[in-house]
Amino acid sequence: MTLRALTDADIDVLSRMIGEDAVAVDERSLNRASGDHLADPAYRRRPACVVRPSSSEQVGELLRWANRESVAVTTRGAGSGLAAGCVPDAGGLVLEMKRLKQIVEIDPIDRVAVVEAGVVTGALDRALEPYGLFFAGYPMSSAVSQIGGNIATNAGGGRAVKYGVTGRHVLSVEVVTGDGEHRVFGGRRRKDVVGYDLRSLMIGSEGTLGVIVGATLSLLPRPKAYCSLLVGFDTPRAAIEVMSEAMRSSGALFSAVEVMDEYCMELGATTRRTVPPLVAPWSVLFEADGSDEREAASLIETTASMCSHASGTMLGPDQGEQREQWWAIRESIPWALKRQSSFQGVEDISLPISRLTPVLERMREIAATHRLSTPTFGHLGDGNMHIHPMIAGDAADGVDAEEWKRRERAFLGQFYPIIADAGGTISGEHGVGGKRTGDLDLMLGGEYRRLLRGVKQVFDPNGILNPGKAI
Amino acid sequence: MTLRALTDADIDVLSRMIGEDAVAVDERSLNRASGDHLADPAYRRRPACVVRPSSSEQVGELLRWANRESVAVTTRGAGSGLAAGCVPDAGGLVLEMKRLKQIVEIDPIDRVAVVEAGVVTGALDRALEPYGLFFAGYPMSSAVSQIGGNIATNAGGGRAVKYGVTGRHVLSVEVVTGDGEHRVFGGRRRKDVVGYDLRSLMIGSEGTLGVIVGATLSLLPRPKAYCSLLVGFDTPRAAIEVMSEAMRSSGALFSAVEVMDEYCMELGATTRRTVPPLVAPWSVLFEADGSDEREAASLIETTASMCSHASGTMLGPDQGEQREQWWAIRESIPWALKRQSSFQGVEDISLPISRLTPVLERMREIAATHRLSTPTFGHLGDGNMHIHPMIAGDAADGVDAEEWKRRERAFLGQFYPIIADAGGTISGEHGVGGKRTGDLDLMLGGEYRRLLRGVKQVFDPNGILNPGKAI
Repeated sequence: MTLRALTDADIDVLSRMIGEDAVAVDERSLNRASGDHLADPAYRRRPACVVRPSSSEQVGELLRWANRESVAVTTRGAGSGLAAGCVPDAGGLVLEMKRLKQIVEIDPIDRVAVVEAGVVTGALDRALEPYGLFFAGYPMSSAVSQIGGNIATNAGGGRAVKYGVTGRHVLSVEVVTGDGEHRVFGGRRRKDVVGYDLRSLMIGSEGTLGVIVGATLSLLPRPKAYCSLLVGFDTPRAAIEVMSEAMRSSGALFSAVEVMDEYCMELGATTRRTVPPLVAPWSVLFEADGSDEREAASLIETTASMCSHASGTMLGPDQGEQREQWWAIRESIPWALKRQSSFQGVEDISLPISRLTPVLERMREIAATHRLSTPTFGHLGDGNMHIHPMIAGDAADGVDAEEWKRRERAFLGQFYPIIADAGGTISGEHGVGGKRTGDLDLMLGGEYRRLLRGVKQVFDPNGILNPGKAI
Repeated sequence: MTLRALTDADIDVLSRMIGEDAVAVDERSLNRASGDHLADPAYRRRPACVVRPSSSEQVGELLRWANRESVAVTTRGAGSGLAAGCVPDAGGLVLEMKRLKQIVEIDPIDRVAVVEAGVVTGALDRALEPYGLFFAGYPMSSAVSQIGGNIATNAGGGRAVKYGVTGRHVLSVEVVTGDGEHRVFGGRRRKDVVGYDLRSLMIGSEGTLGVIVGATLSLLPRPKAYCSLLVGFDTPRAAIEVMSEAMRSSGALFSAVEVMDEYCMELGATTRRTVPPLVAPWSVLFEADGSDEREAASLIETTASMCSHASGTMLGPDQGEQREQWWAIRESIPWALKRQSSFQGVEDISLPISRLTPVLERMREIAATHRLSTPTFGHLGDGNMHIHPMIAGDAADGVDAEEWKRRERAFLGQFYPIIADAGGTISGEHGVGGKRTGDLDLMLGGEYRRLLRGVKQVFDPNGILNPGKAI
């Protein structure tokens, strides 16, 4: 079905329907709603208007209208995504969820939080602390990211080694599907095998199957202690072997195993106005949590003993200030990188852990032939690495946007098939969004995409939801 | 599309296609393939033949033929289900997966096992032990259940409080869909947000969307120690409060919290030729695991201290023989109950934990009006309870099958709406199968079922896979 452009008359209709203060066409609102955290201007597009509903009923009313009128609807959470998933490529309106920000209920017996989609992840975390509970499905951008956006992208994060990604902690999603129907998939119960798992189908569907308006989240007992260790390695392989051996000999999972290459470590340290705590080709931050300090330290001490045998550079174990500083450095990296150059991409590859080392080696060789640097950091424990291919500093002299794009495309054209061959995928947590749809045939094959389109048709028959994204 | 009956000519075709020794029409094979672990003869039906493929290619060839010829295909694992999911209600053939029993690979770096669908859960566990790894997605019937069946039903189990159910531990499923196409959903990577989550859609779809031929399973470090505590309570409520408080104050999850009513405890103990270790309206078995004995004991000791303040009857903490005996009693209950009467059902309700107590109280009142006893046991930590409504002993004098069915239906007709009102569901881990399809409108609504049928259409356009089941 062909979607049509929004007219001034439509905007009047929307103002009467949702309220005048809920429909914005001012410059600032339209600009803000044009893009996400990607720096590249290719991934921006202005919507005709921004609508800010205050209730799920309003979302239903809006979608029934849009479905009838063939108007595209792109849902936006905090806009902290990195795949252009919330960019209104097909025109139409942007639905901003920030007014749906109520924490409806926290129940320590059922260990659930019932929330609206626009609740900020960090705000939920603060509300849970007095109960001795936490929501483990948070991404690293938890200070701003909204629960609805986390679910729509099935966001990953720094502690997925032990706790998995967002979807694991979602008991039910409340959505409005493309036909304007209000539906709840899943429920407050912890086990449910009645009907197909449509809850999981919504999770990570990037606003293309339904608009998430609320959720019931599963909560975990809040860990009482953390312990970290920072170790320098010559290759990821050496770190991966320690990681596997330490977990199997201890019978416990790390909560996180993060990695930074030498460039990222130095950049992160500089940003935090300090010197790099250690200098090595690869710095690995191991972390464990537990019921008490002794328990959190146990796996880390086993790891430290293995690393000292392997004579790696090592700092810690630490449960205090040093640990916080290491994490601050790690967390500052994506933001610090963003400032290095406007000629940069953000890759989010996910691989079988055993294949990381050769794939990263091959990546550097290919990047060199295209005169790109490839700062690399990420979630070693999950095999999910972030790479920012870029042209920065002196190398950027005389380079224009077209030249950058040409080199980036040439690099990715050689790199992505290597990932596919290694059993990996091109996004572990950022999503396909508007950025990676061109690579789906390589990753999934055309036949698989036919299935995705068939599923989309069931939930959004007229294709009004985030057209052109994710599938 | 109308499905047709199998003819002798079809059986000749199948024998040539899959091999003569792989197509069985003998009495014993047909009888075995007629039902699952439900005692009720209403849930049995003889297939026209049983086919035992030895490779995923053979499954593909068979399904392409069945799709072309409009023949129903019902897949069978160990037949240990409790929802008549593998009963060939629509006639046609039964596909037995037991020859697909290869553990293809165990990789301690990627922490995965690659298996064929017919691998027995317990056999995989024994193979994993030397690696210090385990597969946490196992049901209580792990001695016989097959991995493919566990995935097809998204089986639960005794340690889901900490580890969740089967689906959490499945990185990819290899299926043959209704059109005979061989497909892999997911992969060996631990994070993946490319495309919709079709892997989760297959998990728990009870053989109606695809035949699972293999899987890549995520493995966990194998716990080194377990500790248990057995406590008597007057009400489930009292146990639930201790459970919540202990986990939140310790910052740790129990691995299991199992419950037995007085009748089940006595029956289980008798089966194990011992006396009940304690006598109470509700006996609750708390268990924790950990890296070492001290860690496993920590949460249990906190729990014990809370229970002694509440002056409950209490045995343990124990990490040795007593613990094993308690578990043996718990595990013997379903089998012991089955022998009590042929006039019995198997219910599998799942509720918000906070609603368990009033729902169980109401259940007993309703059952009494229908002169049914309701032995109850199950997974208190997940809110998933098994109830065997029955007429046993003297009460069964003069009762015939028709009378039993009448009373059972009258009881469930009052009980199920109470579960729905409480935000629960009628199956937490057994599945819908052929047994609960009549109750789907009550649980999900007709509109929801339209979505399920739409999804089914995408993967099994001619409806040959396990017709009439699950949705």
